[in-house]
Amino acid sequence: MPKDFDELRKKLIAETKKKVKESISEDNLITQAVNCIDESDRTANTLAKRLREWYSFYCPEFSNSIASHPKFIELIQKKTKKELLKEINVKPEDSMGADLKKEDVDAILELAKAINRLYEVKELQTKYLEKVMKAYCPNITAVAGPLIGAKLLAIAGSLKKLSSMPSSTIQLLGAEKALFRHLTTGAKSPKYGILHEHTLISQAKKSEHGKIARLLADKIAIAAKVDFFKGKFVGDNLNDEIKRRLKK
Amino acid sequence: MPKDFDELRKKLIAETKKKVKESISEDNLITQAVNCIDESDRTANTLAKRLREWYSFYCPEFSNSIASHPKFIELIQKKTKKELLKEINVKPEDSMGADLKKEDVDAILELAKAINRLYEVKELQTKYLEKVMKAYCPNITAVAGPLIGAKLLAIAGSLKKLSSMPSSTIQLLGAEKALFRHLTTGAKSPKYGILHEHTLISQAKKSEHGKIARLLADKIAIAAKVDFFKGKFVGDNLNDEIKRRLKK
Repeated sequence: MPKDFDELRKKLIAETKKKVKESISEDNLITQAVNCIDESDRTANTLAKRLREWYSFYCPEFSNSIASHPKFIELIQKKTKKELLKEINVKPEDSMGADLKKEDVDAILELAKAINRLYEVKELQTKYLEKVMKAYCPNITAVAGPLIGAKLLAIAGSLKKLSSMPSSTIQLLGAEKALFRHLTTGAKSPKYGILHEHTLISQAKKSEHGKIARLLADKIAIAAKVDFFKGKFVGDNLNDEIKRRLKK
Repeated sequence: MPKDFDELRKKLIAETKKKVKESISEDNLITQAVNCIDESDRTANTLAKRLREWYSFYCPEFSNSIASHPKFIELIQKKTKKELLKEINVKPEDSMGADLKKEDVDAILELAKAINRLYEVKELQTKYLEKVMKAYCPNITAVAGPLIGAKLLAIAGSLKKLSSMPSSTIQLLGAEKALFRHLTTGAKSPKYGILHEHTLISQAKKSEHGKIARLLADKIAIAAKVDFFKGKFVGDNLNDEIKRRLKK
């Protein structure tokens, strides 16, 4: 009896291991990738702020003249202080920046290089995510875009769960906090969650936002069902439908 | 009169710019470098946790077997899954990790590379900081070490301010929160701030911690005064004194 029991135990463990192994799907990979993109972005921005503060000892005029972090980081690596000052029409003798030694500047530029690497990773992984999303859920990707689609998937937990959600739930994914505040305190109900990042919404008038979010969520709900049940590609039809409805 | 006024204004602006330029000292550079080291470390660890979670889809056994982030990152870049599993004596067919495609694994390894870069930056900047600290305040560096010395300097604001602090203040730099909690609520008073990172304290018995912190702060206060007034190097004497007093 104990021997049998041992054997059974071993079998069950092997079986479970196999199941764990097989349970890892595109859902998991997409969730990790999209979270990683978010985190790379956040850390790169934190470090970029530090870089700007540090660099502004050396050349404060240039640090103030340019708003985009990636552009700023690219330029300070490529050009010397003199060239940068010339670009923004400041005479070198007018600069408030200190004349740092080469080793001081090198320490700053090392940081710039590392941040650059983080931006590169973000880009590479965005491309990777796009590829995986297009293969795994082409319809969601066509309607929502790879990044927003992946975020919806990550919040829902899996494509299966997303596909079983009504469009009103999809519309509010990512706005859980505002929704529960609405339900408990009677504050205004949210109009959209993650979807507010969609270009159709961010480019529209504010009074239209709710309507477009509802429309998008509607089509994404359909797309998710088609993707989950491996239907044909209907993304273009859905997008045409959205365009048509928006024109009215 | 308006013309004179304009000229005066221009002169004063030029004068102020010059003063701003001259006001940037080693204090600022040290503060930036030590904060940057802290931040690189923190961001690298955040991303490393993400990497481990992601990687454990692929090879969970290895991710659990190694505690150090940098070592983990180095190994997964160098070796294949098979080699790694062999190292920890797990048969490949027993692994619970999924068989990911090459492009999935590549996305994970891209992140590993970026984190590696952050660790490298941290190392380079630690070396840079050491160099600047040794030149700017050799005595503090000798007693407290470059990293702790730089942190004290950053919290104090400048070498000038640090040199005018009594040793009891230096002892508690970095423990401001606990100190004010002590003063307002009567909670236990802190024994040390940043100094708790010093090897002499972390290696000692807990009952000795307060005594050693007091002793260290004492000598750092002397070192700061010598450094600020550009005295001779007395770091070795101070260290000998500390050793002698600890033996008693």
